[in-house]
Amino acid sequence: MVKVAVVGASGYTGVELIRLLLAHPGVDVTCVTSRQNAGEKIAAVFPSLLGRIDLACDPVEPALIAVKADFVFTALPHQSAMEVVPELLAAGRKVVDLSADYRLREVAVYEAWYARHTSANLLAEAVYGLPELYRSQVAGARLVANPGCYPTSVALALAPLLRAGLIDPATLIIDSKSGTSGAGRSAKVDSLFCEVNEGFKAYGVASHRHTPEIEQTLTDLAGEKVIVNFTPHLLPVNRGIFSTCYATLMVEKSTLELVETFQQHYSGETFVRVHPAGSLPNVAFVRGSNFCDLGVVSDPRTGRVIVVSTIDNLVKGAAGQAVQNMNLMLGFEESAGLMALPVFP
Amino acid sequence: MVKVAVVGASGYTGVELIRLLLAHPGVDVTCVTSRQNAGEKIAAVFPSLLGRIDLACDPVEPALIAVKADFVFTALPHQSAMEVVPELLAAGRKVVDLSADYRLREVAVYEAWYARHTSANLLAEAVYGLPELYRSQVAGARLVANPGCYPTSVALALAPLLRAGLIDPATLIIDSKSGTSGAGRSAKVDSLFCEVNEGFKAYGVASHRHTPEIEQTLTDLAGEKVIVNFTPHLLPVNRGIFSTCYATLMVEKSTLELVETFQQHYSGETFVRVHPAGSLPNVAFVRGSNFCDLGVVSDPRTGRVIVVSTIDNLVKGAAGQAVQNMNLMLGFEESAGLMALPVFP
Amino acid sequence: MVKVAVVGASGYTGVELIRLLLAHPGVDVTCVTSRQNAGEKIAAVFPSLLGRIDLACDPVEPALIAVKADFVFTALPHQSAMEVVPELLAAGRKVVDLSADYRLREVAVYEAWYARHTSANLLAEAVYGLPELYRSQVAGARLVANPGCYPTSVALALAPLLRAGLIDPATLIIDSKSGTSGAGRSAKVDSLFCEVNEGFKAYGVASHRHTPEIEQTLTDLAGEKVIVNFTPHLLPVNRGIFSTCYATLMVEKSTLELVETFQQHYSGETFVRVHPAGSLPNVAFVRGSNFCDLGVVSDPRTGRVIVVSTIDNLVKGAAGQAVQNMNLMLGFEESAGLMALPVFP
Amino acid sequence: MVKVAVVGASGYTGVELIRLLLAHPGVDVTCVTSRQNAGEKIAAVFPSLLGRIDLACDPVEPALIAVKADFVFTALPHQSAMEVVPELLAAGRKVVDLSADYRLREVAVYEAWYARHTSANLLAEAVYGLPELYRSQVAGARLVANPGCYPTSVALALAPLLRAGLIDPATLIIDSKSGTSGAGRSAKVDSLFCEVNEGFKAYGVASHRHTPEIEQTLTDLAGEKVIVNFTPHLLPVNRGIFSTCYATLMVEKSTLELVETFQQHYSGETFVRVHPAGSLPNVAFVRGSNFCDLGVVSDPRTGRVIVVSTIDNLVKGAAGQAVQNMNLMLGFEESAGLMALPVFP
Repeated sequence: MVKVAVVGASGYTGVELIRLLLAHPGVDVTCVTSRQNAGEKIAAVFPSLLGRIDLACDPVEPALIAVKADFVFTALPHQSAMEVVPELLAAGRKVVDLSADYRLREVAVYEAWYARHTSANLLAEAVYGLPELYRSQVAGARLVANPGCYPTSVALALAPLLRAGLIDPATLIIDSKSGTSGAGRSAKVDSLFCEVNEGFKAYGVASHRHTPEIEQTLTDLAGEKVIVNFTPHLLPVNRGIFSTCYATLMVEKSTLELVETFQQHYSGETFVRVHPAGSLPNVAFVRGSNFCDLGVVSDPRTGRVIVVSTIDNLVKGAAGQAVQNMNLMLGFEESAGLMALPVFP
Repeated sequence: MVKVAVVGASGYTGVELIRLLLAHPGVDVTCVTSRQNAGEKIAAVFPSLLGRIDLACDPVEPALIAVKADFVFTALPHQSAMEVVPELLAAGRKVVDLSADYRLREVAVYEAWYARHTSANLLAEAVYGLPELYRSQVAGARLVANPGCYPTSVALALAPLLRAGLIDPATLIIDSKSGTSGAGRSAKVDSLFCEVNEGFKAYGVASHRHTPEIEQTLTDLAGEKVIVNFTPHLLPVNRGIFSTCYATLMVEKSTLELVETFQQHYSGETFVRVHPAGSLPNVAFVRGSNFCDLGVVSDPRTGRVIVVSTIDNLVKGAAGQAVQNMNLMLGFEESAGLMALPVFP
Repeated sequence: MVKVAVVGASGYTGVELIRLLLAHPGVDVTCVTSRQNAGEKIAAVFPSLLGRIDLACDPVEPALIAVKADFVFTALPHQSAMEVVPELLAAGRKVVDLSADYRLREVAVYEAWYARHTSANLLAEAVYGLPELYRSQVAGARLVANPGCYPTSVALALAPLLRAGLIDPATLIIDSKSGTSGAGRSAKVDSLFCEVNEGFKAYGVASHRHTPEIEQTLTDLAGEKVIVNFTPHLLPVNRGIFSTCYATLMVEKSTLELVETFQQHYSGETFVRVHPAGSLPNVAFVRGSNFCDLGVVSDPRTGRVIVVSTIDNLVKGAAGQAVQNMNLMLGFEESAGLMALPVFP
Repeated sequence: MVKVAVVGASGYTGVELIRLLLAHPGVDVTCVTSRQNAGEKIAAVFPSLLGRIDLACDPVEPALIAVKADFVFTALPHQSAMEVVPELLAAGRKVVDLSADYRLREVAVYEAWYARHTSANLLAEAVYGLPELYRSQVAGARLVANPGCYPTSVALALAPLLRAGLIDPATLIIDSKSGTSGAGRSAKVDSLFCEVNEGFKAYGVASHRHTPEIEQTLTDLAGEKVIVNFTPHLLPVNRGIFSTCYATLMVEKSTLELVETFQQHYSGETFVRVHPAGSLPNVAFVRGSNFCDLGVVSDPRTGRVIVVSTIDNLVKGAAGQAVQNMNLMLGFEESAGLMALPVFP
């Protein structure tokens, strides 16, 4: 059994990592950390864990973590992650970092959209952990940058079309909707029940920080510089991301032809499910699972294709994908601990 | 006091009409009809009305309705409306029809997207009841076709840009999200709480019946034939429509300039509120009210403009707009009975 | 027009007071205050108010408030209210205080359940503002203590039975459920969307501060000391209180007989609606309105009666009842500004 | 691998059974049936299952089912279950029946609360499948009547107190709240999203059919005839039952003492978790899991004890408990396939 640590265990991604790792046949959770809950039992912070884990939260000290665990998940806010990751690597630990700190290859882009980077030297080495696109690199990495939730949903939606050159990348418009757990567990008026429930809004319009991350991957896929409109919205649900992607087709294709393209593209993938023509995904059908569900429709009236994509933002959009990356890095079966079906309803 | 009838009172639009009309200073609700609840007290069907209205539901018989009321709201499904509207007009009654039956000017378009039309002769006379665009025609009409909820949110969002020629109509993409009351009150598995709650999906992609209605109005505004991508989604909230509209700007404009264009365009309108730059609408901020809230953002990276628009689908998207039309048709103050503020939270 | 102030305008009760007062025919809102949003436009804090009120938030200074307004609503947390109310009264202003500070007649009880009282001298004068029970005293008061949301729902549920001596007060068990706006608008993890949504819990079991307030009123009604079990729960809805009350009947009564007792008891009341036998209230049917809906069932198997009671916690449970009290204190029609129907769905 | 059938697969309990059984190490799902979806792929009915099960729905024919499977779960409405269970038993199959048809030992009680019973001869043999109370009988049964959701939550809440004689059974009041999946997946107006969302109501007051089932088990536990008040309410959440139980203590006990009683009582049980004093359950903390979480509080002011109990109605309240029973009947580890942690948030 590999000893693993969850750094930043008192957030929603943290508790989801623990949930998944406790069901994993090859690892033991031996360390959980939390700044604000240091000293408290993690099962007191999240009673969903009651009776199944007895650990108390350690403070966020890399030296201590490296003693207690061989493999580390860092589920910290950006900027905080870069304060601990270099030391963990130096101590010989493998790391999946769930923050944004190591996702962008160019330090200038990171600093334009986020803040100053204090370990930019690691950017060249960090592997962007979207296994369906970068599987072999992930397997050999010691530092994996776990993708953002929105970028995961978008990259998987558009990969078949961009790889095959079927759409004009200059026409890409991405309208995404996220469940509220994506906003984290910190106490903010904007995340209060009464502010979110029975509401719906756009935010970060033309300015959201996931934009350069999306563009970096789509540029890889297209083989040319891609710039997109990306508009996130806040959904009054706990979990789920839904992205509706629009692009102009370069050649006429029917819905049936496009569905077949998608099914072939993802035929070997465990976690990507392509809906048959006439059926479309719903965030409810992936809840709690590591699936990404895709649907595609051709609109002959406008010559555009519409791809809809849905994931559970805490699983395939965060903790589940992180475990998938760990599986690759440690030589486990890629799907180990991740085969639970969606919880519906 | 004008005597008014609500035909189709046992649906969500019906009960909303009653709610608004009972608060109106110039009318009396003297007749409510319902096929499935005929004979029942309407306050037993909707206990929200308890103690404030004592009427029982009549069957849907035009002759009876014409005896009991001088002005009629028909809140029936499409196809059902055209079975009663001609007779009501023939009896000298003014009608606001909330179905789709008289919204499309061309019978061929109606029949392509809906079904056979049995009173196509009325299409030339029917006025499309979006007061902010067609106010003077509404005032003189005896038959007003009350706009669909999605089309209302879209037309008000794009009117300032299309009228001013600021966007390329060929690039229009409209991503809309609707609360579940838009699906009506009939018993369908797809509308069950457990199917909708904690879910989110697209539906009618590239095929929704509101598409030709949207295009008809945008074509009027642009002065040229407009074809759009329109994608509706189902939101797990009771009320609210949110439309995110994308188009390529013909000339560079900053967000501030665009906000000013919108504010000038709507400066005399009671029910359209333009958010200042940096603030954006939320369906929660219009709930229960007749407001349409708009926000606009320019994206210099892509040269596109994003307009977000929100209404309460049962008020400005249905019953409220219907009362606004009635006010114009009967010479009341346009805002009579419609000034209630949004219920937040 | 009477000039009124809303002190503590940036909470949910504050914005609800503004919503109701802007619809009131006899008053002008001339002052709104907020500690944390001082200087900001209240319509920027709550965009639901956009276009209908242009006031900026004043700091919470009694002298300033007394200059700007003749009548004051204090919607502050307990302890904060008693810091401003005495000065407002001294300046000759009438006050409806929505905190708990003046609700309990005995200072010892207040200090046992809350904290030290700094203006206990006002307790004798303050009138408990439940108009259906204390109407005449309210009309003559200069300081009204607006009841808590739970106590309102409970007192109206049990008054007909206690006044008529039909139940044994020693057997009273009250199981209440409240929408989340009752927890206020301050940023707390426990009130986050993801903590409340799809959840349900009890809190304050056998220790909630509304217990002595409930017991004070029930003691008045029973004419003997009443002690109850009161258990509040948190409902994943924005608005609404639902209380299920159990007691042993002193004499056998059928459901029909009990419904008749309730209907007679409340026959003259505008805001209390008694459901006919076989129909029961739902929080959805009072949303946004000042109604209290009641239902009653006799259980011959156990000899107990069950009364269910529902209000909108922000209206009849706070702001609406406060306006009702103001109407009595200023000689307006008691229902002025309060006749809006529930917003359903 | 044991071949199992899910009869009535197109309901919420059916899909939950499939979800759990696909994760079970010792069984294969070889047959699913549905009247209304016969011939359809079950993964088309529930896209949450996409890619993991390829079966089409068979009609509900016992002979066919008995050929395809060795063990059968019947998840049918009451009355429908008794039409197939006798034949399945006659064919030598073991059955867990999730309907109410075999839960009540006395045919007269069944017929008073439900309808005529056509296989009353099986009542003596059927074992009430609450493993924590009747484990050894379940292990030897060929027909297990899976308990109702409410009765499960109540029996586990009260067993420690009744067995120890700590409360007066004549004072029992049970106030329960259920998520909406408990109402099933049939198309009814009352279960529509807009009717349930933002609502809360009581139903079946003093008349709910789970009352005699609750009383039967509590009578077993108390060793004397128990009659209770049981009031169910409808919660606007998908999953979860929460029962708040009140009773008068026979002897003074502190909260700490009572918590210890509960912890000792359930010390060997995998699926019952007793919260420490000061902490209380929340339906959100059991979602998707087979846990029953309990909390207990003593109220010295009234001499009563309050026990709160929560389960996921589709897991411990239905499908999970059914699998737990199957595990006992087939000699598997009792917790096989049931150890998934709750999905929070």
